[in-house]
Amino acid sequence: MAHKHSGAAIAGIGQTEFSKESGRSELQLACEAIKSALDDCGLKPADVDGLVTFTLDTSDDVDVIRSTGMKEVHFSSRTPHGGGGACATIFQAMAAVDAGIADVVVAYRAFNERSGRRFGQPHLVDSQNAGGGTSFAQWCMPFGAMTPASWAALMAQRYMETHGVTNEDLGRVSVLQRKHAATNPAAWFYGKPITLADHQASRWIIEPVLRLLDCCQESDGGVAIVITSAERARDLKQKPVRILGAAQAIPYGVEIVTGFYELDLTHAAHPEMFATARRLYERTGLKPADFQLAMLYDAFTPQILTQLEAYQFCAIGEAKDFIKAGNIEIGGKIPINTNGGLIGEAYIHGMNNISEAVRQLRGQAANQVSNVERVLVSSGICATALGID
Amino acid sequence: MAHKHSGAAIAGIGQTEFSKESGRSELQLACEAIKSALDDCGLKPADVDGLVTFTLDTSDDVDVIRSTGMKEVHFSSRTPHGGGGACATIFQAMAAVDAGIADVVVAYRAFNERSGRRFGQPHLVDSQNAGGGTSFAQWCMPFGAMTPASWAALMAQRYMETHGVTNEDLGRVSVLQRKHAATNPAAWFYGKPITLADHQASRWIIEPVLRLLDCCQESDGGVAIVITSAERARDLKQKPVRILGAAQAIPYGVEIVTGFYELDLTHAAHPEMFATARRLYERTGLKPADFQLAMLYDAFTPQILTQLEAYQFCAIGEAKDFIKAGNIEIGGKIPINTNGGLIGEAYIHGMNNISEAVRQLRGQAANQVSNVERVLVSSGICATALGID
Repeated sequence: MAHKHSGAAIAGIGQTEFSKESGRSELQLACEAIKSALDDCGLKPADVDGLVTFTLDTSDDVDVIRSTGMKEVHFSSRTPHGGGGACATIFQAMAAVDAGIADVVVAYRAFNERSGRRFGQPHLVDSQNAGGGTSFAQWCMPFGAMTPASWAALMAQRYMETHGVTNEDLGRVSVLQRKHAATNPAAWFYGKPITLADHQASRWIIEPVLRLLDCCQESDGGVAIVITSAERARDLKQKPVRILGAAQAIPYGVEIVTGFYELDLTHAAHPEMFATARRLYERTGLKPADFQLAMLYDAFTPQILTQLEAYQFCAIGEAKDFIKAGNIEIGGKIPINTNGGLIGEAYIHGMNNISEAVRQLRGQAANQVSNVERVLVSSGICATALGID
Repeated sequence: MAHKHSGAAIAGIGQTEFSKESGRSELQLACEAIKSALDDCGLKPADVDGLVTFTLDTSDDVDVIRSTGMKEVHFSSRTPHGGGGACATIFQAMAAVDAGIADVVVAYRAFNERSGRRFGQPHLVDSQNAGGGTSFAQWCMPFGAMTPASWAALMAQRYMETHGVTNEDLGRVSVLQRKHAATNPAAWFYGKPITLADHQASRWIIEPVLRLLDCCQESDGGVAIVITSAERARDLKQKPVRILGAAQAIPYGVEIVTGFYELDLTHAAHPEMFATARRLYERTGLKPADFQLAMLYDAFTPQILTQLEAYQFCAIGEAKDFIKAGNIEIGGKIPINTNGGLIGEAYIHGMNNISEAVRQLRGQAANQVSNVERVLVSSGICATALGID
C-alpha cells in the first residue's frame, strides 16, 4: 500500500453547549455548531461548499444551507455506521478536498439525544428500518438484546472472560475520563469526578459487564468541523491541523454496533478496529509511538481496551494492565480522551473527540498535554491521524 | 475554476430484470445487480473495496459485504436527494478513486419500488422523517400536495404558463421515450410504443400538468456500476468508459424534489439543474456540442425540458419547439434517453440511465447511436460527463 499524503487540514471547530435538554431543534443545534466553527477560523457560510454528516442526522443539507446562508454546495454526503463512522466524516471531507471537488467542507453532527430520541432506549422500529444500519436488530431484539449496551456487553464478555478482565478494570477507564471531564468546563460532568468505589457502586446495566458508569452519556448538542486545504487553512485564524491521513475498513462479517457473526470474539471483539488500525498505519507510515495522544471512541468502557490493543499501544489481552499502570493518563505513555470523552464530556456521537484532538494540537485544551504533535482519533470503522507542522 | 481531469473510469455495469414484482428482497436485488456488474468486467467481490448508494437504499453495506463475499471495504458512503442524486454516486466514486482512498468502488441502488414501498403514493410518515430529505413535506402535505407528482407539477406549471407549453408538448417526450423502450428488450415497455393520442387519452394525475403517461414507472429492480482507475479498467473485460468529470451543485434555496422557496419559477423551475450544468461545464471545459447523447433524469416529462435548457442544448423557453423539431430523437441534434429512460425502461432511481450511457459508449446499446464519444448524464443536483478515449 502506497504511503499517501493528504493536503487537507482542519481549519475550524465549533460546538454548542452540551446538555440534557437543549430546548431547541436539532437543525438549530447543527447551524449553531456550524456558525461557531466558521467563526473559529474566520470563514463565512458563503465560503462553505461541502457538507458531510451521519446518515442518522436529521438535518438535511438543504435546510442547513438555507438556515446558515450558504451559497452553493458542491459536495454533500452522509456516512453510515453511526458514531462508529464519526471519523469517516473527516475521511470523506479529506478525500473531497484532495480530489479537488470541494474547497471548504463542514462536517457536522447535532441531536437532542437525551431530550429527544434516546439511543440508550430500545427502539423496536429500528428493526424494520433497513438501511439504517440496524438490520441485525431483527435477529437479536426478539431475544432481549434491545440496546447498544446489551450488544456491546455481549461483544465484551468473551474477551473479559478470556483475559481475566473485571468490571473494576473497566472502571479505571471511567474514573480517568471523569477526572478529565471534571477540569473541562465544557463537559457535562465538569467538577464531578468519581472514584472507583463510586463506579463499583453504580447499578448494573448489563451484568456482569457494564455498570451505569461504564456507559457514555446521552446528550443534547452539536459539533462542527471545517476542513479545507492546508494551503488555504494557513491564511485563516487558527493554526491549521493537518490531516496526515485517514482510513476506513469494514471487513467481511462485521456488523454495525454488534459483531455477532465473528467466529472468534476472544482476541478481537471488534475486527473492524484492528482492520482500520492496520490500514491507517499502512497508509500514513505512522506507528503507535508517533502519537502523543489518542482520542478513542468510548460509547462503553470495554471499547477503550479493544482500541488500545488494535492500535498496538499494548499487546492483545494486556490492556487492563496497561491501563492500571497509568499509561493512558496525562503524563503516561499514551494519554487518552483528555476532554472526558463521550463518558465524561458529552455523547456527540464521537465528533467531540475529534475537536478535542484539534484543541490539543493547537494548545487550547482544558487539560493540555505538553508537546502534542500528532494525535490519533479512532472510531469503530474509521480513524484519522492529525498533526501540526 | 480549474479544469479538472479525473483518472477514474466505469469498468462494469450490471442489473437485475426490471419488473413490477420481483418476488425477492431488496438486499437480494442489490447483490444480484452487483454480481452482474462484476461479472461484466471480470472482477470478483473480493476485489471491491468501496461502496456507495443512496441514503434511501435499504441494503446496508455490511449486509452487501457479507452477502456477496467482499473482503474489506475502505470507503462506504451514502448520497442524499434520492434520484436527484443518482449521478452523485458516480461523483463520489470518482472522488474516492481520484483521492486514492479506494481502488474499486461499486455504486448500487435496488428496491421493490412497485411491490414494496411505492414512491407514487402519499407517505405521511415522511413528513416526520427529518434527514430523509423530506423535511419540506410538513409544509405542503397538509395542503394536499402529497406526492412527487404533485410537487413536480407545481414546479412545472408556472414555467408552462409563461412559455406556452401544453401537456401535448410534454407528451412528445413520453412518446419518444416509449418508442425507445419498445425496441429495448430490457425495458418494461418493450414492444409497447404509444402515440400522442394515447398520451392525451391517459388520465390526469395532476391537471393541467401531468397525465399518467407523463410520469415515470414504479419499478422493482437493481442497478450496479463499477468504478475504478482508468489504468486498472484497461486491463478488464470491457472497453473502459472514462469519467471525464462530474459535478454537484446545491444552491441556496433549493429543496429536494420541490423548489418552493425559489422566488422565480418562470425561468428556472430547477435552479439546481442550472447550477450543476454550469459547474460541470466549468470543471470539464466541455460544452453542449461536445456530446452526442444526453441521458436526462425523467421522473416526469417537464424535467426533460428544464434539463435541455439548463445544459444549453436550447435557450430558455425554447425546449418545446426544440423537441417538436425532432432534435432529441436518434439522428437529431442531441438524442436523449435511448433506453426509454425512467418512463419507458424502468424507474431504478436514475441509475439505469447511467448504465445506458455506458452501453452507448461501448457500442452495446439496443438503440445504438452512431459515433458516440461523449455522453452527458444528468440528475437533479449532479451530473457526469462520460467518454471513450
